[in-house]
Amino acid sequence: MTKTDLARRVYNHTWKLDPICRSLLDTDFYKLLMLQMIRGLYPDVNATFSLMNRNKKVQLAAEIDEGELREQLDHARTIRFTKKEMIWLAGNTFYGRKQIFQPDFLAWLADFRLPEYELRRHNGQFELHFHGRWEETTMWEIPALAIINELRSRAAMRSLGPFALDVLYARAKAKVWSKVERLKRYPDIRISDFGTRRRHSFLWQRWCVEALKEGIGEAFTGTSNVLLAMDTDLEALGTNAHELPMVLAALADTEEELRAAPYRVLEDWQTYYGGNLLIVLPDTFGTEAFLHAAPDWVAGWTGFRPDSAPPVEGGERIISWWKERGQDPREKLLIFSDGLDVDTIERTHRHFKGRVRTAFGWGTNLTNDFEDCAPKEIDSLKAISMVCKVSEANGRPAVKLSDNPEKATGDPQAIKRYLEIFGSEERVRRPVTV
Amino acid sequence: MTKTDLARRVYNHTWKLDPICRSLLDTDFYKLLMLQMIRGLYPDVNATFSLMNRNKKVQLAAEIDEGELREQLDHARTIRFTKKEMIWLAGNTFYGRKQIFQPDFLAWLADFRLPEYELRRHNGQFELHFHGRWEETTMWEIPALAIINELRSRAAMRSLGPFALDVLYARAKAKVWSKVERLKRYPDIRISDFGTRRRHSFLWQRWCVEALKEGIGEAFTGTSNVLLAMDTDLEALGTNAHELPMVLAALADTEEELRAAPYRVLEDWQTYYGGNLLIVLPDTFGTEAFLHAAPDWVAGWTGFRPDSAPPVEGGERIISWWKERGQDPREKLLIFSDGLDVDTIERTHRHFKGRVRTAFGWGTNLTNDFEDCAPKEIDSLKAISMVCKVSEANGRPAVKLSDNPEKATGDPQAIKRYLEIFGSEERVRRPVTV
Repeated sequence: MTKTDLARRVYNHTWKLDPICRSLLDTDFYKLLMLQMIRGLYPDVNATFSLMNRNKKVQLAAEIDEGELREQLDHARTIRFTKKEMIWLAGNTFYGRKQIFQPDFLAWLADFRLPEYELRRHNGQFELHFHGRWEETTMWEIPALAIINELRSRAAMRSLGPFALDVLYARAKAKVWSKVERLKRYPDIRISDFGTRRRHSFLWQRWCVEALKEGIGEAFTGTSNVLLAMDTDLEALGTNAHELPMVLAALADTEEELRAAPYRVLEDWQTYYGGNLLIVLPDTFGTEAFLHAAPDWVAGWTGFRPDSAPPVEGGERIISWWKERGQDPREKLLIFSDGLDVDTIERTHRHFKGRVRTAFGWGTNLTNDFEDCAPKEIDSLKAISMVCKVSEANGRPAVKLSDNPEKATGDPQAIKRYLEIFGSEERVRRPVTV
Repeated sequence: MTKTDLARRVYNHTWKLDPICRSLLDTDFYKLLMLQMIRGLYPDVNATFSLMNRNKKVQLAAEIDEGELREQLDHARTIRFTKKEMIWLAGNTFYGRKQIFQPDFLAWLADFRLPEYELRRHNGQFELHFHGRWEETTMWEIPALAIINELRSRAAMRSLGPFALDVLYARAKAKVWSKVERLKRYPDIRISDFGTRRRHSFLWQRWCVEALKEGIGEAFTGTSNVLLAMDTDLEALGTNAHELPMVLAALADTEEELRAAPYRVLEDWQTYYGGNLLIVLPDTFGTEAFLHAAPDWVAGWTGFRPDSAPPVEGGERIISWWKERGQDPREKLLIFSDGLDVDTIERTHRHFKGRVRTAFGWGTNLTNDFEDCAPKEIDSLKAISMVCKVSEANGRPAVKLSDNPEKATGDPQAIKRYLEIFGSEERVRRPVTV
């Protein structure tokens, strides 16, 4: 039947708001793991999160309407966890563990809402900040990024007619499926979706996740998106992020405390989590500095997630460090998640095969690859490198150095001080695309 | 955009099976409550469930294709409870109580599948039986009925073109909404959906449930359909059914045990459930006989569900019985669920207002009222009175007398014996439409 559904058509055409953020579970799983720890150990810490657009050439405030942005942010603030979602969080098994979230944390979460935001336009960019308790502001990272990215896609597609749109998605689907077919050749590969924050749109991410699920089966190990994990009976995946060492470093009162911050985070973490959640993210203040000063027990953790060095190089460095510390890399896990696409995944998988367990957290190039898909070139359909990072903790600047100076964030003075303390060994400038 | 989605169109047109039963939760909640008790107390009992079409004039086997029926029944047998569903059953609150389902029951349920069926055609009807353990066969009641009813609707609509179908659903929706508007006048009314078994289709039941939710708000207390309850964050409602006294009576070895069976069921029930789940279904072997011989503690239960006497008459009878037993009816609950429509609901609500608490379990006339909706008259769009009842327990005939001899089921010899034992006081023959 091709009759037009009149009610639906009018409803669609008088749509007040097509919400981008549909649920508080539409976030990355690691935010919930970190949140439980933040609330447990650092409930009084204030942390400001700020939007940072690394592609200065892209003038976000010219592409996106401020009113629409405010509507979406306001809408996200009205959302609560639903009864079904709370039941699922309490009852599901995560990383093989039941009740990973404690009852008092879940009781608190049931009333959670996103805190206020501060938005203004400046030089063609949006200045978007979230001030307040760390245990609240941290939850803005993913929805803020997803909202801006999807508003950007929507704006980019506004000039396209129905045929052009049809072709756009046809090409994008064909592209994803070609990637799926290439990955199918490696049944022992382990891939998961890490593409929430920079996705083209929520519905597109869902399409990609379902395509991977159908296409590569067991090789698809899950998604970082908690809502999609729930809705599609997939594993929710993710561990921890740079914000933990960044905040702890900012809170340090002495140079000694500052040097110890990256390891203090791991000590905190292992009081909450174990097993495959014991994954080190070593590059916050440079991987070399981290490995050099790491206590021996760090080598006992399950794995590393090198996030800014090139995969082969970064992985080899960690393997040799494990060996130095008497560990067998074949029992260890390397999780790659920085700017991956099929080429890198294939190459890295083949390179390390049999020498170390690997897993790939595939992000932007999975959920937002529309290159050459539009019938005419549309610059603003291209994903940009935008992050939402902690910028201050208890009034002090928060800093990330990274292994790639292009990915560093923070006040220049503070960066300079951190570089003096942690050194700048092996830091190599590389272009950041996503 | 009105572009045709080619992939979807081809998928729809090459559809192998449009499943009617989508989930094992697509059943009535009382089946799960009873199942837990059956499995706990009567795990070794065998019970046969059989389809009974009370409208002999409707030749089911002429309306429905046997192959399609087998496909749907076979498909239902492939379904398992999903991870998300199991988590929800374990974590949700039912009737204000957490963990109403015990862990060992849930562990067993996780592997549950519907048992085999026996199907043949005879005299234009289907003979459909489910033999085996009571703890398995009981779960066929609702899917079997829902499958046959939906296959009947589909067959009935096959002759309609796109316009006729459009008008059919337009009228049916208008009709439901007029009912909603009438019920809106009584904000203190309490209505729930009991329409799974005889629904027009799953999607139509969902539409009706969502219409009631939006239309009468708090006055809509929930649905007996567990899947819809989960998906729409509504309460799952229901208590117990005739099969419990029917099986216990069939198992009785002496006349004394047979007379005691209806009360034995209640004793069993209250070892599992309490509060608003303590609802007596009195009419299995005639309400008069039940009330007459009932021990005093039965009057202490929360309420009654008179299921075959006319609502006002049946309700009054129970109220006077409560008074005889020194109970205040204003603290009691009457649940009406037999052949209700807006007229009966309104009238009954007004009649009892202030004298007893009432609730209405609205079934067939909510989820399958297409009278005068099709552009031409289609007899087979009209709901029929069909049930799936226990017919044998451990090889002995199972009997229901009911307050309405038209609703009696069982072997004529056995019915005769039961009537001698329980009497036939106040049983009045009334036409059964749904």
